[in-house]
Amino acid sequence: MQISDIIGDIVSSYNETGTTRYFDNSPLPQLSAVTEMIDELKGIIYPGYRNLEALHSANIEVYVGAAVEHLAEKLTDIIERAFTHSEFFNDLPPAERRQEIKSLAEETTQTFLCRISGIRRMLAKDVEAAYAGDPACKSLDEAVLCYPGLEAVTVHRLAHALHLLHVPMIPRMMSEYAHSKTGIDIHPGASIGEYFFIDHGTGVVVGETAFIGNWVKLYQGVTLGAVSFPKDEAGELIRSTKRHPTLEDNVVVYANATILGGKTVIGKGSVVGSSVWLTHSLPAGTTIMIEKPNLKVRNAQTGEYDWII
Amino acid sequence: MQISDIIGDIVSSYNETGTTRYFDNSPLPQLSAVTEMIDELKGIIYPGYRNLEALHSANIEVYVGAAVEHLAEKLTDIIERAFTHSEFFNDLPPAERRQEIKSLAEETTQTFLCRISGIRRMLAKDVEAAYAGDPACKSLDEAVLCYPGLEAVTVHRLAHALHLLHVPMIPRMMSEYAHSKTGIDIHPGASIGEYFFIDHGTGVVVGETAFIGNWVKLYQGVTLGAVSFPKDEAGELIRSTKRHPTLEDNVVVYANATILGGKTVIGKGSVVGSSVWLTHSLPAGTTIMIEKPNLKVRNAQTGEYDWII
Amino acid sequence: MQISDIIGDIVSSYNETGTTRYFDNSPLPQLSAVTEMIDELKGIIYPGYRNLEALHSANIEVYVGAAVEHLAEKLTDIIERAFTHSEFFNDLPPAERRQEIKSLAEETTQTFLCRISGIRRMLAKDVEAAYAGDPACKSLDEAVLCYPGLEAVTVHRLAHALHLLHVPMIPRMMSEYAHSKTGIDIHPGASIGEYFFIDHGTGVVVGETAFIGNWVKLYQGVTLGAVSFPKDEAGELIRSTKRHPTLEDNVVVYANATILGGKTVIGKGSVVGSSVWLTHSLPAGTTIMIEKPNLKVRNAQTGEYDWII
Repeated sequence: MQISDIIGDIVSSYNETGTTRYFDNSPLPQLSAVTEMIDELKGIIYPGYRNLEALHSANIEVYVGAAVEHLAEKLTDIIERAFTHSEFFNDLPPAERRQEIKSLAEETTQTFLCRISGIRRMLAKDVEAAYAGDPACKSLDEAVLCYPGLEAVTVHRLAHALHLLHVPMIPRMMSEYAHSKTGIDIHPGASIGEYFFIDHGTGVVVGETAFIGNWVKLYQGVTLGAVSFPKDEAGELIRSTKRHPTLEDNVVVYANATILGGKTVIGKGSVVGSSVWLTHSLPAGTTIMIEKPNLKVRNAQTGEYDWII
Repeated sequence: MQISDIIGDIVSSYNETGTTRYFDNSPLPQLSAVTEMIDELKGIIYPGYRNLEALHSANIEVYVGAAVEHLAEKLTDIIERAFTHSEFFNDLPPAERRQEIKSLAEETTQTFLCRISGIRRMLAKDVEAAYAGDPACKSLDEAVLCYPGLEAVTVHRLAHALHLLHVPMIPRMMSEYAHSKTGIDIHPGASIGEYFFIDHGTGVVVGETAFIGNWVKLYQGVTLGAVSFPKDEAGELIRSTKRHPTLEDNVVVYANATILGGKTVIGKGSVVGSSVWLTHSLPAGTTIMIEKPNLKVRNAQTGEYDWII
Repeated sequence: MQISDIIGDIVSSYNETGTTRYFDNSPLPQLSAVTEMIDELKGIIYPGYRNLEALHSANIEVYVGAAVEHLAEKLTDIIERAFTHSEFFNDLPPAERRQEIKSLAEETTQTFLCRISGIRRMLAKDVEAAYAGDPACKSLDEAVLCYPGLEAVTVHRLAHALHLLHVPMIPRMMSEYAHSKTGIDIHPGASIGEYFFIDHGTGVVVGETAFIGNWVKLYQGVTLGAVSFPKDEAGELIRSTKRHPTLEDNVVVYANATILGGKTVIGKGSVVGSSVWLTHSLPAGTTIMIEKPNLKVRNAQTGEYDWII
């Protein structure tokens, strides 16, 4: 087969599938642009830690001014691209729709930028929670510089704000960026209160409709997921308003625990032990652990296994 | 100790260990070249999503033509390097061997490129499966842009094709690249049918000899692994042809389930619940869940733990 | 709201929180510098695999000489920054403190560089352990090129050496870099013997005070963690000297097993099976597995679940 045949073959497959190729005049939000946008946002939220050195009270306004203006332009473009692929203004003629989308993108960017200072205040509390929650954490700066849980929560709070502004695609691209870096997969739709801390974090999954109160702490491998039922008679997955659990204030969930279901509420101050598998609610103040599991030990002489404990 | 002594000391350690340093005229495949190759392949398989904008039916042939030709050259070089480190043609004199390896690399690259259109058709089905399988997925484009499961499967189908062509090292470098990005570790040897979907995915391990049918869905933390037995009397791990399980069509495996053993067959349409640990086969149509675990609750008054449920 | 108001608002939030912004003349160690430093160290430890080609006995001294000198300069700067943020010499006047910190950084860099050859010898053994421990591993070169466990252990042995030299922040930045790439989270404080191997690795957590002997093998999802107890009466987490377990020589821990507690000692040659949850010690030579779990199966006719096995 000649290389020209190979190319012809690949081009045919584009026409044949009709999907997984993007032939359209309206460009998609680019992953690289979203990634750069996240980095710029982190530079504004945590000034002096990564991007720039020797910031101080006198020069910070100049620095952050330039950064916000650059960000605003970039963000408007990405959001405009995302809205173009939504159903917004679909009933308008193309030229008018483009105009409306453009205005909406500018307005949405503005609103989002207004929320940055509030998000900063939330994140400063998350940093405190990381320091308070991990005996191995030596300083607030260490939490900012190298805690994956903080990385994931930072991206989440930003993605969630865009999600609330009905921006399509971009919040999921952001959360997936954080997931790739940290192993922590928080859907942008999840509601998370103040002083949130995830330690280690690899394998954590927080579903779209999860609701988390203040001062909640999660460890690695925790799933806040949907109940896993077999499909209904029509063969469809059940899609309901609230598929994922609620964790009230001051709840701690230890490593690899799984909490499932939209009606599951873990009451205030409860502690869910490592590896617990839970599909029902707990009243406030409950501490729950798995029963010490039955283990079997191989008898070195006989090679047989005996049950123990 | 002077810096010259430190350097001398390090150089001595190269000579002493004899391994973990590569002093050889025939260069290894470079990780950076493999990574770039994957990115180029993704640009060809999902045109318009990342690399280029404003692709359409009229210009796509020019674009993909240039991309495939560039890829072919790069790929031939990497594959030649990999074959050089295989046992192929080891009985020939060096000059002849180099010639044979070169020819084989060109032929293998050609064969691999011929398979791209078929892999594209498979991946278009995987994208459909992602959309069908996740209530939170809003569009096919969203699946292409930000689903880690699709990222892992894309790299797997490409790596598996090279694995079937007996290319050494490169398939494992590719799967490890995807593992690093997604937390999903699929050995290039694993056979995976059509419409495959992994949701969230962090911690998924699919072993070398696993066999997966069509329309199979896995969630985060699922292991399709080898049975964990103590070593045999000679102290060696048991190496057999088929060490990992078979999942027939339409099987769903929920979060953190572990399925082990080369003789384990999960029958068509079966559902394996979250956290199930399974080392034996299931007949078709089985739905299996763990028994609701025994949990113990701390009595707030006495501080003691009581067994519940 | 004008963009100038938005900027003013963000600047106010810097002054208000007082944390999570770094306004200081003494610069922090930069994450990008730490990452580059790790890459340079890997180039010295595994010469010829990534950075350079055509190394051989005659030119290696020139190559590694230049690399070590470049590294020494960079490392001194990063370590100086880290020490500046420690409590070292806090009682001295600023100018003198700067001088002392500078000397200490130079001395520490020197001592660290002296340890590289020893770390190389350790890592050559870890590569052997990877090859010996995984039936799917084809060669020592494959282990160096694409085993995430080796990546994590390489970074750990370097970070641990800096940890022992009392360098703040940088060891944690290094371990978090490896965690992000591999899903393996080893605290720089953990003590790990020779011939250590982690297979797959996603989700592995090894705590600060864990102690691991020689020829130990861990699989994905293994936690060597602290016992998860509810807080004490003062509401504080219990911080003790030894919070994480000890694994003696030749111990194997299979996937997703959890071993907790600073007094927990897994005796020499023991095997801990997949998904075991353990908070007590095991005598040498013990093989322990979870009891085959009770599973329930849905009856296809009635739709009810029956207990099986």
